[in-house]
Amino acid sequence: MSTVFDRIAESFARQGLMTHLGAKLLRAEAGVVAFDLPMSERVTQQQGAFHGGAVSALADIACGYAALTQAPEGMEVTSVEFKINFISAARGDRIEAQGKVLKAGRTLAIAQAEVFDHREGKPVLCAAMQATMIYVAKTY
Amino acid sequence: MSTVFDRIAESFARQGLMTHLGAKLLRAEAGVVAFDLPMSERVTQQQGAFHGGAVSALADIACGYAALTQAPEGMEVTSVEFKINFISAARGDRIEAQGKVLKAGRTLAIAQAEVFDHREGKPVLCAAMQATMIYVAKTY
Amino acid sequence: MSTVFDRIAESFARQGLMTHLGAKLLRAEAGVVAFDLPMSERVTQQQGAFHGGAVSALADIACGYAALTQAPEGMEVTSVEFKINFISAARGDRIEAQGKVLKAGRTLAIAQAEVFDHREGKPVLCAAMQATMIYVAKTY
Amino acid sequence: MSTVFDRIAESFARQGLMTHLGAKLLRAEAGVVAFDLPMSERVTQQQGAFHGGAVSALADIACGYAALTQAPEGMEVTSVEFKINFISAARGDRIEAQGKVLKAGRTLAIAQAEVFDHREGKPVLCAAMQATMIYVAKTY
Repeated sequence: MSTVFDRIAESFARQGLMTHLGAKLLRAEAGVVAFDLPMSERVTQQQGAFHGGAVSALADIACGYAALTQAPEGMEVTSVEFKINFISAARGDRIEAQGKVLKAGRTLAIAQAEVFDHREGKPVLCAAMQATMIYVAKTY
Repeated sequence: MSTVFDRIAESFARQGLMTHLGAKLLRAEAGVVAFDLPMSERVTQQQGAFHGGAVSALADIACGYAALTQAPEGMEVTSVEFKINFISAARGDRIEAQGKVLKAGRTLAIAQAEVFDHREGKPVLCAAMQATMIYVAKTY
Repeated sequence: MSTVFDRIAESFARQGLMTHLGAKLLRAEAGVVAFDLPMSERVTQQQGAFHGGAVSALADIACGYAALTQAPEGMEVTSVEFKINFISAARGDRIEAQGKVLKAGRTLAIAQAEVFDHREGKPVLCAAMQATMIYVAKTY
Repeated sequence: MSTVFDRIAESFARQGLMTHLGAKLLRAEAGVVAFDLPMSERVTQQQGAFHGGAVSALADIACGYAALTQAPEGMEVTSVEFKINFISAARGDRIEAQGKVLKAGRTLAIAQAEVFDHREGKPVLCAAMQATMIYVAKTY
Protein backbone atom coordinates (compact mmCIF):
# COMPACT_ATOMS: atom_id res chain seq x y z
CA MET A 1 0.00 0.00 0.00
CA SER A 2 1.29 3.42 -0.90
CA THR A 3 1.12 5.77 2.06
CA VAL A 4 2.05 8.67 -0.19
CA PHE A 5 -0.74 7.80 -2.61
CA ASP A 6 -3.29 7.59 0.21
CA ARG A 7 -2.19 10.90 1.70
CA ILE A 8 -2.67 12.64 -1.66
CA ALA A 9 -5.92 10.81 -2.37
CA GLU A 10 -7.42 11.86 0.97
CA SER A 11 -6.69 15.54 0.38
CA PHE A 12 -7.66 15.41 -3.30
CA ALA A 13 -11.06 13.87 -2.58
CA ARG A 14 -11.91 16.99 -0.58
CA GLN A 15 -11.42 19.31 -3.57
CA GLY A 16 -14.89 20.21 -4.80
CA LEU A 17 -13.58 21.80 -8.00
CA MET A 18 -11.51 18.84 -9.06
CA THR A 19 -13.99 16.09 -8.31
CA HIS A 20 -16.70 18.16 -9.95
CA LEU A 21 -14.70 18.59 -13.16
CA GLY A 22 -13.93 14.86 -13.18
CA ALA A 23 -10.18 14.85 -12.42
CA LYS A 24 -8.58 11.64 -11.15
CA LEU A 25 -5.37 10.85 -9.29
CA LEU A 26 -3.28 8.46 -11.41
CA ARG A 27 0.03 8.12 -9.61
CA ALA A 28 1.81 9.49 -6.52
CA GLU A 29 5.36 8.69 -5.45
CA ALA A 30 8.06 10.68 -3.69
CA GLY A 31 8.30 13.98 -5.58
CA VAL A 32 6.20 12.90 -8.56
CA VAL A 33 2.44 12.76 -9.17
CA ALA A 34 0.04 12.50 -12.11
CA PHE A 35 -3.61 13.44 -12.59
CA ASP A 36 -5.93 13.27 -15.53
CA LEU A 37 -9.04 15.09 -16.63
CA PRO A 38 -11.47 13.78 -19.25
CA MET A 39 -12.95 16.03 -21.95
CA SER A 40 -16.52 17.10 -21.19
CA GLU A 41 -18.70 20.17 -21.60
CA ARG A 42 -17.66 21.08 -18.06
CA VAL A 43 -14.11 21.96 -19.09
CA THR A 44 -14.30 23.69 -22.49
CA GLN A 45 -13.53 27.20 -23.68
CA GLN A 46 -15.37 29.06 -26.44
CA GLN A 47 -13.73 27.19 -29.32
CA GLY A 48 -14.43 23.70 -27.91
CA ALA A 49 -10.93 22.88 -26.62
CA PHE A 50 -9.96 22.35 -22.97
CA HIS A 51 -10.24 25.72 -21.18
CA GLY A 52 -6.93 27.20 -20.04
CA GLY A 53 -8.50 27.49 -16.61
CA ALA A 54 -9.06 23.73 -16.49
CA VAL A 55 -5.56 22.99 -17.81
CA SER A 56 -3.97 25.29 -15.25
CA ALA A 57 -6.12 23.95 -12.38
CA LEU A 58 -4.93 20.42 -13.18
CA ALA A 59 -1.29 21.53 -13.48
CA ASP A 60 -1.61 23.47 -10.22
CA ILE A 61 -2.70 20.41 -8.24
CA ALA A 62 0.05 18.35 -9.91
CA CYS A 63 2.60 20.87 -8.60
CA GLY A 64 0.93 21.13 -5.21
CA TYR A 65 0.59 17.41 -4.59
CA ALA A 66 4.12 16.73 -5.86
CA ALA A 67 5.21 19.14 -3.11
CA LEU A 68 2.91 17.41 -0.62
CA THR A 69 4.69 14.09 -1.18
CA GLN A 70 7.69 15.74 0.46
CA ALA A 71 5.90 17.70 3.18
CA PRO A 72 6.46 17.08 6.89
CA GLU A 73 3.72 15.03 8.61
CA GLY A 74 0.62 17.04 9.46
CA MET A 75 1.35 19.75 6.92
CA GLU A 76 -0.69 20.75 3.88
CA VAL A 77 0.43 22.67 0.81
CA THR A 78 -0.90 25.96 -0.55
CA SER A 79 0.02 27.61 -3.86
CA VAL A 80 1.98 30.83 -3.43
CA GLU A 81 1.99 31.44 -7.18
CA PHE A 82 2.35 29.70 -10.50
CA LYS A 83 3.14 30.52 -14.09
CA ILE A 84 1.85 28.49 -17.02
CA ASN A 85 2.59 28.50 -20.74
CA PHE A 86 -0.07 27.14 -23.07
CA ILE A 87 1.83 25.38 -25.82
CA SER A 88 -0.91 23.93 -28.00
CA ALA A 89 -4.70 23.72 -27.86
CA ALA A 90 -5.84 20.51 -26.12
CA ARG A 91 -8.73 18.79 -27.94
CA GLY A 92 -8.18 15.13 -27.06
CA ASP A 93 -10.22 12.69 -24.98
CA ARG A 94 -8.31 13.61 -21.85
CA ILE A 95 -5.35 15.60 -20.57
CA GLU A 96 -2.75 14.35 -18.10
CA ALA A 97 -0.69 16.57 -15.80
CA GLN A 98 2.60 15.27 -14.41
CA GLY A 99 4.10 17.20 -11.51
CA LYS A 100 7.58 16.97 -10.03
CA VAL A 101 9.46 18.77 -7.26
CA LEU A 102 12.58 20.74 -8.14
CA LYS A 103 13.37 21.62 -4.54
CA ALA A 104 11.53 21.09 -1.27
CA GLY A 105 12.77 23.33 1.52
CA ARG A 106 11.46 23.82 5.04
CA THR A 107 9.03 26.59 4.13
CA LEU A 108 8.75 26.62 0.34
CA ALA A 109 8.80 24.07 -2.46
CA ILE A 110 9.42 24.71 -6.16
CA ALA A 111 7.65 22.39 -8.59
CA GLN A 112 7.07 21.98 -12.31
CA ALA A 113 4.26 20.30 -14.21
CA GLU A 114 3.80 19.29 -17.81
CA VAL A 115 0.35 18.71 -19.27
CA PHE A 116 -0.17 16.30 -22.16
CA ASP A 117 -3.11 16.20 -24.51
CA HIS A 118 -4.09 12.61 -25.30
CA ARG A 119 -5.55 12.63 -28.78
CA GLU A 120 -6.00 9.19 -30.32
CA GLY A 121 -3.72 7.79 -27.65
CA LYS A 122 -0.72 9.94 -28.52
CA PRO A 123 0.43 12.40 -25.83
CA VAL A 124 1.29 15.91 -27.02
CA LEU A 125 2.77 18.53 -24.67
CA CYS A 126 0.10 21.23 -24.34
CA ALA A 127 1.21 23.24 -21.29
CA ALA A 128 4.11 23.72 -18.87
CA MET A 129 3.91 25.20 -15.36
CA GLN A 130 6.45 26.38 -12.81
CA ALA A 131 5.11 26.99 -9.31
CA THR A 132 5.99 27.99 -5.76
CA MET A 133 4.25 26.20 -2.91
CA ILE A 134 4.28 26.88 0.82
CA TYR A 135 3.83 24.34 3.61
CA VAL A 136 1.02 25.25 6.00
CA ALA A 137 -0.61 23.56 8.97
CA LYS A 138 -3.36 21.09 8.06
CA THR A 139 -6.68 22.33 9.40
CA TYR A 140 -8.99 19.37 8.84
CA MET B 1 -26.30 49.13 -25.99
CA SER B 2 -22.70 48.17 -25.46
CA THR B 3 -21.23 46.46 -28.51
CA VAL B 4 -18.13 45.59 -26.53
CA PHE B 5 -20.24 43.98 -23.81
CA ASP B 6 -22.18 41.92 -26.35
CA ARG B 7 -19.03 40.76 -28.09
CA ILE B 8 -17.60 39.50 -24.79
CA ALA B 9 -20.91 38.03 -23.68
CA GLU B 10 -21.27 36.03 -26.90
CA SER B 11 -17.84 34.46 -26.57
CA PHE B 12 -18.17 33.94 -22.82
CA ALA B 13 -21.48 32.10 -23.13
CA ARG B 14 -19.68 29.45 -25.19
CA GLN B 15 -17.24 28.60 -22.37
CA GLY B 16 -18.44 25.34 -20.85
CA LEU B 17 -16.08 25.61 -17.88
CA MET B 18 -17.14 29.10 -16.88
CA THR B 19 -20.90 28.69 -17.26
CA HIS B 20 -20.65 25.38 -15.42
CA LEU B 21 -18.84 26.91 -12.46
CA GLY B 22 -21.37 29.73 -12.35
CA ALA B 23 -19.24 32.70 -13.46
CA LYS B 24 -20.98 35.85 -14.74
CA LEU B 25 -19.89 38.78 -16.87
CA LEU B 26 -20.38 41.99 -14.84
CA ARG B 27 -18.86 44.77 -16.95
CA ALA B 28 -17.00 45.22 -20.24
CA GLU B 29 -15.65 48.47 -21.61
CA ALA B 30 -12.61 49.37 -23.72
CA GLY B 31 -9.66 47.68 -22.03
CA VAL B 32 -11.48 46.80 -18.80
CA VAL B 33 -13.75 43.91 -17.82
CA ALA B 34 -15.10 42.27 -14.64
CA PHE B 35 -16.46 38.81 -13.88
CA ASP B 36 -17.70 37.21 -10.72
CA LEU B 37 -17.96 33.67 -9.41
CA PRO B 38 -20.20 32.64 -6.49
CA MET B 39 -19.01 30.24 -3.78
CA SER B 40 -20.33 26.70 -4.24
CA GLU B 41 -19.10 23.16 -3.78
CA ARG B 42 -18.10 23.26 -7.44
CA VAL B 43 -15.21 25.64 -6.80
CA THR B 44 -13.62 24.60 -3.49
CA GLN B 45 -10.24 23.19 -2.55
CA GLN B 46 -9.56 20.74 0.28
CA GLN B 47 -9.81 23.31 3.07
CA GLY B 48 -13.15 24.76 1.90
CA ALA B 49 -11.86 28.00 0.33
CA PHE B 50 -12.08 28.92 -3.37
CA HIS B 51 -9.71 26.59 -5.27
CA GLY B 52 -6.67 28.29 -6.81
CA GLY B 53 -7.71 26.70 -10.08
CA ALA B 54 -11.06 28.50 -9.96
CA VAL B 55 -9.46 31.80 -8.95
CA SER B 56 -6.93 31.57 -11.77
CA ALA B 57 -9.54 30.52 -14.32
CA LEU B 58 -11.59 33.63 -13.47
CA ALA B 59 -8.52 35.89 -13.59
CA ASP B 60 -7.47 34.31 -16.90
CA ILE B 61 -10.74 35.18 -18.61
CA ALA B 62 -10.61 38.68 -17.10
CA CYS B 63 -7.23 39.16 -18.78
CA GLY B 64 -8.31 37.51 -22.00
CA TYR B 65 -11.56 39.41 -22.41
CA ALA B 66 -9.89 42.71 -21.45
CA ALA B 67 -7.59 42.01 -24.40
CA LEU B 68 -10.57 41.08 -26.58
CA THR B 69 -12.13 44.50 -26.03
CA GLN B 70 -9.21 45.86 -28.05
CA ALA B 71 -8.96 43.13 -30.66
CA PRO B 72 -9.47 43.77 -34.38
CA GLU B 73 -12.91 42.72 -35.72
CA GLY B 74 -13.20 38.98 -36.37
CA MET B 75 -10.36 38.07 -34.04
CA GLU B 76 -10.46 36.00 -30.88
CA VAL B 77 -7.97 35.89 -28.03
CA THR B 78 -5.99 32.93 -26.71
CA SER B 79 -3.80 32.84 -23.58
CA VAL B 80 -0.10 32.48 -24.35
CA GLU B 81 0.75 32.30 -20.66
CA PHE B 82 -0.11 33.77 -17.31
CA LYS B 83 1.34 34.10 -13.84
CA ILE B 84 -0.76 34.42 -10.71
CA ASN B 85 0.05 35.18 -7.08
CA PHE B 86 -2.39 33.99 -4.45
CA ILE B 87 -2.42 36.70 -1.81
CA SER B 88 -4.98 35.46 0.69
CA ALA B 89 -7.41 32.54 0.92
CA ALA B 90 -10.81 33.46 -0.53
CA ARG B 91 -13.71 32.27 1.62
CA GLY B 92 -16.40 34.84 0.87
CA ASP B 93 -19.76 34.56 -0.88
CA ARG B 94 -18.21 35.41 -4.24
CA ILE B 95 -14.99 36.51 -5.87
CA GLU B 96 -14.70 39.22 -8.52
CA ALA B 97 -11.93 39.45 -11.10
CA GLN B 98 -11.17 42.80 -12.74
CA GLY B 99 -9.01 42.69 -15.86
CA LYS B 100 -7.27 45.56 -17.67
CA VAL B 101 -4.99 45.85 -20.67
CA LEU B 102 -1.47 47.22 -20.18
CA LYS B 103 -0.64 47.15 -23.89
CA ALA B 104 -2.47 45.84 -26.93
CA GLY B 105 -0.21 45.35 -29.94
CA ARG B 106 -0.92 43.86 -33.35
CA THR B 107 -0.05 40.29 -32.33
CA LEU B 108 0.17 40.23 -28.54
CA ALA B 109 -1.58 41.93 -25.64
CA ILE B 110 -0.34 42.23 -22.05
CA ALA B 111 -3.01 42.30 -19.36
CA GLN B 112 -3.34 42.25 -15.58
CA ALA B 113 -6.16 41.10 -13.34
CA GLU B 114 -6.91 41.52 -9.66
CA VAL B 115 -9.26 39.17 -7.86
CA PHE B 116 -11.21 40.33 -4.82
CA ASP B 117 -12.80 38.14 -2.19
CA HIS B 118 -16.18 39.54 -1.13
CA ARG B 119 -16.69 38.54 2.48
CA GLU B 120 -19.54 40.31 4.21
CA GLY B 121 -19.59 42.82 1.40
CA LYS B 122 -16.03 44.02 1.85
CA PRO B 123 -13.63 43.31 -1.06
CA VAL B 124 -10.19 41.97 -0.11
CA LEU B 125 -7.46 41.47 -2.72
CA CYS B 126 -6.90 37.71 -2.91
CA ALA B 127 -4.93 37.24 -6.15
CA ALA B 128 -3.05 39.17 -8.86
CA MET B 129 -2.33 37.97 -12.40
CA GLN B 130 -0.12 39.16 -15.24
CA ALA B 131 -0.76 37.56 -18.61
CA THR B 132 0.22 37.49 -22.28
CA MET B 133 -2.52 37.04 -24.86
CA ILE B 134 -2.32 36.47 -28.61
CA TYR B 135 -4.88 37.50 -31.21
CA VAL B 136 -6.06 34.58 -33.37
CA ALA B 137 -8.66 34.15 -36.08
CA LYS B 138 -12.18 33.45 -34.81
CA THR B 139 -13.27 29.99 -35.91
CA TYR B 140 -16.96 29.91 -35.00
CA MET C 1 15.71 62.56 7.21
CA SER C 2 14.03 59.49 5.76
CA THR C 3 14.89 56.39 7.74
CA VAL C 4 13.31 54.22 5.08
CA PHE C 5 15.40 55.86 2.38
CA ASP C 6 18.61 55.35 4.36
CA ARG C 7 17.82 51.72 5.08
CA ILE C 8 17.35 51.02 1.36
CA ALA C 9 20.37 53.11 0.38
CA GLU C 10 22.64 51.21 2.77
CA SER C 11 21.64 47.82 1.37
CA PHE C 12 21.61 49.03 -2.25
CA ALA C 13 25.16 50.45 -2.03
CA ARG C 14 26.38 46.92 -1.29
CA GLN C 15 25.04 45.52 -4.59
CA GLY C 16 28.04 45.14 -6.89
CA LEU C 17 25.88 44.49 -9.94
CA MET C 18 23.71 47.55 -9.54
CA THR C 19 26.42 50.07 -8.71
CA HIS C 20 28.50 48.65 -11.55
CA LEU C 21 25.71 49.10 -14.09
CA GLY C 22 25.12 52.64 -12.83
CA ALA C 23 21.71 52.27 -11.16
CA LYS C 24 20.61 54.94 -8.66
CA LEU C 25 18.03 55.04 -5.87
CA LEU C 26 15.55 57.85 -6.61
CA ARG C 27 12.84 57.53 -3.97
CA ALA C 28 11.87 55.28 -1.06
CA GLU C 29 8.76 55.58 1.08
CA ALA C 30 6.52 53.08 2.84
CA GLY C 31 5.67 50.46 0.22
CA VAL C 32 6.97 52.43 -2.78
CA VAL C 33 10.44 52.88 -4.28
CA ALA C 34 12.01 54.05 -7.55
CA PHE C 35 15.38 53.43 -9.19
CA ASP C 36 16.87 54.53 -12.47
CA LEU C 37 19.51 53.21 -14.82
CA PRO C 38 21.23 55.32 -17.50
CA MET C 39 21.86 53.99 -21.01
CA SER C 40 25.48 52.86 -21.54
CA GLU C 41 27.34 50.14 -23.36
CA ARG C 42 27.22 48.19 -20.11
CA VAL C 43 23.48 47.53 -20.38
CA THR C 44 22.74 46.86 -24.06
CA GLN C 45 21.55 43.79 -25.97
CA GLN C 46 22.54 42.88 -29.53
CA GLN C 47 20.28 45.44 -31.20
CA GLY C 48 21.45 48.39 -29.09
CA ALA C 49 18.45 48.68 -26.75
CA PHE C 50 18.47 48.10 -22.98
CA HIS C 51 19.07 44.39 -22.36
CA GLY C 52 16.12 42.50 -20.88
CA GLY C 53 18.53 41.32 -18.20
CA ALA C 54 19.23 44.91 -17.16
CA VAL C 55 15.54 45.85 -17.25
CA SER C 56 14.59 42.85 -15.14
CA ALA C 57 17.45 43.40 -12.67
CA LEU C 58 16.21 46.97 -12.09
CA ALA C 59 12.60 45.84 -11.74
CA ASP C 60 13.68 43.06 -9.36
CA ILE C 61 15.34 45.48 -6.95
CA ALA C 62 12.35 47.82 -7.20
CA CYS C 63 10.13 44.94 -6.04
CA GLY C 64 12.62 43.78 -3.42
CA TYR C 65 13.24 47.17 -1.88
CA ALA C 66 9.54 48.04 -1.94
CA ALA C 67 9.09 44.92 0.19
CA LEU C 68 12.03 45.95 2.39
CA THR C 69 10.29 49.22 3.28
CA GLN C 70 7.76 47.05 5.11
CA ALA C 71 10.13 44.49 6.59
CA PRO C 72 10.57 43.99 10.33
CA GLU C 73 13.75 45.59 11.78
CA GLY C 74 16.88 43.52 11.22
CA MET C 75 15.41 41.63 8.26
CA GLU C 76 16.54 41.63 4.66
CA VAL C 77 14.60 40.60 1.56
CA THR C 78 15.40 37.89 -0.97
CA SER C 79 13.59 37.22 -4.25
CA VAL C 80 11.68 33.95 -4.28
CA GLU C 81 10.69 34.44 -7.90
CA PHE C 82 9.56 37.03 -10.37
CA LYS C 83 7.84 37.25 -13.72
CA ILE C 84 8.39 40.08 -16.17
CA ASN C 85 6.71 41.09 -19.42
CA PHE C 86 8.71 43.16 -21.87
CA ILE C 87 6.22 45.56 -23.42
CA SER C 88 8.37 47.67 -25.73
CA ALA C 89 12.07 47.98 -26.52
CA ALA C 90 13.76 50.61 -24.31
CA ARG C 91 16.13 52.88 -26.23
CA GLY C 92 15.98 56.11 -24.24
CA ASP C 93 18.59 57.94 -22.14
CA ARG C 94 17.52 56.09 -19.01
CA ILE C 95 14.92 53.70 -17.64
CA GLU C 96 13.10 54.10 -14.34
CA ALA C 97 11.61 51.25 -12.30
CA GLN C 98 8.84 51.96 -9.79
CA GLY C 99 8.08 49.24 -7.27
CA LYS C 100 5.10 48.88 -4.94
CA VAL C 101 3.94 46.31 -2.42
CA LEU C 102 0.61 44.54 -2.99
CA LYS C 103 0.76 42.64 0.28
CA ALA C 104 3.40 42.29 2.97
CA GLY C 105 2.85 39.30 5.23
CA ARG C 106 5.00 37.88 8.01
CA THR C 107 7.00 35.59 5.74
CA LEU C 108 6.29 36.64 2.16
CA ALA C 109 5.61 39.88 0.32
CA ILE C 110 4.02 40.30 -3.11
CA ALA C 111 5.21 43.28 -5.15
CA GLN C 112 4.82 44.77 -8.62
CA ALA C 113 7.10 47.02 -10.62
CA GLU C 114 6.65 49.05 -13.78
CA VAL C 115 9.63 50.14 -15.86
CA PHE C 116 9.46 53.29 -17.96
CA ASP C 117 11.71 54.18 -20.89
CA HIS C 118 12.59 57.87 -20.84
CA ARG C 119 13.08 58.90 -24.44
CA GLU C 120 13.25 62.64 -24.98
CA GLY C 121 11.82 63.15 -21.53
CA LYS C 122 8.61 61.23 -22.14
CA PRO C 123 8.10 58.06 -20.08
CA VAL C 124 6.81 54.99 -21.96
CA LEU C 125 5.90 51.75 -20.15
CA CYS C 126 8.44 49.17 -21.31
CA ALA C 127 8.11 46.34 -18.78
CA ALA C 128 5.91 45.08 -15.93
CA MET C 129 6.94 42.68 -13.17
CA GLN C 130 5.12 40.71 -10.49
CA ALA C 131 7.29 39.18 -7.79
CA THR C 132 7.32 37.17 -4.57
CA MET C 133 9.81 38.15 -1.87
CA ILE C 134 10.72 36.42 1.38
CA TYR C 135 11.97 38.08 4.56
CA VAL C 136 15.27 36.64 5.76
CA ALA C 137 17.69 37.48 8.58
CA LYS C 138 20.20 40.20 7.72
CA THR C 139 23.71 38.75 7.76
CA TYR C 140 25.94 41.82 7.49
CA MET D 1 32.46 24.06 -37.68
CA SER D 2 29.14 24.61 -35.96
CA THR D 3 26.97 27.01 -37.90
CA VAL D 4 24.53 27.17 -35.01
CA PHE D 5 27.33 28.01 -32.58
CA ASP D 6 28.65 30.78 -34.86
CA ARG D 7 25.20 32.27 -35.31
CA ILE D 8 24.70 32.48 -31.54
CA ALA D 9 28.26 33.71 -30.95
CA GLU D 10 27.85 36.55 -33.46
CA SER D 11 24.68 37.82 -31.82
CA PHE D 12 25.98 37.26 -28.28
CA ALA D 13 29.19 39.25 -28.91
CA ARG D 14 27.00 42.28 -29.59
CA GLN D 15 25.43 42.22 -26.11
CA GLY D 16 27.12 44.94 -24.08
CA LEU D 17 25.60 43.75 -20.81
CA MET D 18 26.72 40.17 -21.16
CA THR D 19 30.27 40.79 -22.36
CA HIS D 20 30.64 43.44 -19.69
CA LEU D 21 29.58 41.09 -16.90
CA GLY D 22 31.96 38.44 -18.24
CA ALA D 23 29.49 35.84 -19.57
CA LYS D 24 30.72 33.25 -22.09
CA LEU D 25 29.01 30.99 -24.60
CA LEU D 26 29.87 27.37 -23.77
CA ARG D 27 27.76 25.26 -26.12
CA ALA D 28 25.11 25.70 -28.81
CA GLU D 29 23.31 22.92 -30.66
CA ALA D 30 19.82 22.52 -32.07
CA GLY D 31 17.47 23.54 -29.27
CA VAL D 32 20.09 23.55 -26.50
CA VAL D 33 22.65 26.14 -25.36
CA ALA D 34 24.82 26.83 -22.31
CA PHE D 35 26.47 29.99 -20.97
CA ASP D 36 28.54 30.68 -17.91
CA LEU D 37 29.27 33.69 -15.76
CA PRO D 38 32.23 33.93 -13.36
CA MET D 39 31.87 35.40 -9.88
CA SER D 40 33.17 38.98 -9.64
CA GLU D 41 32.24 42.20 -7.88
CA ARG D 42 30.32 43.10 -11.03
CA VAL D 43 27.61 40.53 -10.36
CA THR D 44 26.97 40.51 -6.60
CA GLN D 45 23.99 41.47 -4.44
CA GLN D 46 24.18 43.00 -0.95
CA GLN D 47 25.06 39.74 0.81
CA GLY D 48 27.92 38.81 -1.55
CA ALA D 49 26.14 36.12 -3.59
CA PHE D 50 25.34 36.30 -7.31
CA HIS D 51 22.65 38.97 -7.79
CA GLY D 52 19.27 37.66 -8.90
CA GLY D 53 19.48 40.16 -11.75
CA ALA D 54 22.68 38.53 -13.01
CA VAL D 55 21.26 35.02 -12.61
CA SER D 56 18.10 35.95 -14.48
CA ALA D 57 20.00 37.79 -17.22
CA LEU D 58 22.07 34.65 -17.86
CA ALA D 59 18.99 32.40 -17.81
CA ASP D 60 17.19 34.82 -20.14
CA ILE D 61 19.87 34.60 -22.82
CA ALA D 62 20.01 30.81 -22.39
CA CYS D 63 16.28 30.70 -23.19
CA GLY D 64 16.57 33.25 -25.99
CA TYR D 65 19.50 31.64 -27.74
CA ALA D 66 18.03 28.16 -27.38
CA ALA D 67 15.06 29.58 -29.30
CA LEU D 68 17.41 31.21 -31.81
CA THR D 69 18.92 27.82 -32.70
CA GLN D 70 15.52 27.00 -34.17
CA ALA D 71 14.73 30.35 -35.74
CA PRO D 72 14.22 30.81 -39.48
CA GLU D 73 17.22 32.34 -41.31
CA GLY D 74 17.47 36.11 -40.94
CA MET D 75 15.39 36.21 -37.79
CA GLU D 76 16.41 37.30 -34.30
CA VAL D 77 14.73 36.50 -30.99
CA THR D 78 13.27 38.88 -28.41
CA SER D 79 11.98 37.99 -24.95
CA VAL D 80 8.22 38.43 -24.58
CA GLU D 81 8.36 37.50 -20.90
CA PHE D 82 10.00 35.17 -18.46
CA LYS D 83 9.48 33.83 -14.96
CA ILE D 84 12.31 32.69 -12.73
CA ASN D 85 12.45 30.91 -9.39
CA PHE D 86 15.51 31.38 -7.24
CA ILE D 87 16.12 28.04 -5.58
CA SER D 88 19.30 28.60 -3.58
CA ALA D 89 21.81 31.42 -3.17
CA ALA D 90 24.69 31.08 -5.65
CA ARG D 91 28.09 31.73 -4.08
CA GLY D 92 30.41 29.59 -6.20
CA ASP D 93 33.20 30.48 -8.62
CA ARG D 94 30.81 30.57 -11.53
CA ILE D 95 27.22 29.85 -12.54
CA GLU D 96 26.15 28.00 -15.68
CA ALA D 97 22.80 28.42 -17.42
CA GLN D 98 21.50 25.66 -19.67
CA GLY D 99 18.63 26.55 -21.99
CA LYS D 100 16.35 24.27 -24.00
CA VAL D 101 13.37 24.76 -26.29
CA LEU D 102 10.04 23.17 -25.31
CA LYS D 103 8.28 24.27 -28.49
CA ALA D 104 9.32 26.46 -31.40
CA GLY D 105 6.38 27.68 -33.45
CA ARG D 106 6.23 30.13 -36.35
CA THR D 107 5.80 33.21 -34.18
CA LEU D 108 6.58 32.18 -30.60
CA ALA D 109 8.95 29.80 -28.85
CA ILE D 110 8.67 28.45 -25.31
CA ALA D 111 11.94 27.71 -23.54
CA GLN D 112 13.23 26.68 -20.12
CA ALA D 113 16.59 27.24 -18.45
CA GLU D 114 18.24 25.83 -15.37
CA VAL D 115 21.07 27.66 -13.64
CA PHE D 116 23.71 25.75 -11.68
CA ASP D 117 26.00 27.16 -9.05
CA HIS D 118 29.49 25.65 -9.35
CA ARG D 119 30.95 25.62 -5.87
CA GLU D 120 34.11 23.54 -5.54
CA GLY D 121 33.32 21.91 -8.84
CA LYS D 122 29.94 20.53 -7.82
CA PRO D 123 26.91 21.92 -9.67
CA VAL D 124 23.87 22.80 -7.54
CA LEU D 125 20.57 23.92 -9.09
CA CYS D 126 20.13 27.54 -8.05
CA ALA D 127 17.41 28.85 -10.41
CA ALA D 128 14.83 27.70 -12.96
CA MET D 129 13.26 29.85 -15.70
CA GLN D 130 10.34 29.43 -18.09
CA ALA D 131 10.16 31.95 -20.92
CA THR D 132 8.25 33.02 -24.02
CA MET D 133 10.25 34.30 -26.98
CA ILE D 134 9.10 35.91 -30.23
CA TYR D 135 10.86 35.75 -33.59
CA VAL D 136 11.55 39.20 -35.05
CA ALA D 137 13.38 40.49 -38.12
CA LYS D 138 17.13 40.92 -37.64
CA THR D 139 18.03 44.58 -37.96
CA TYR D 140 21.82 44.53 -38.06
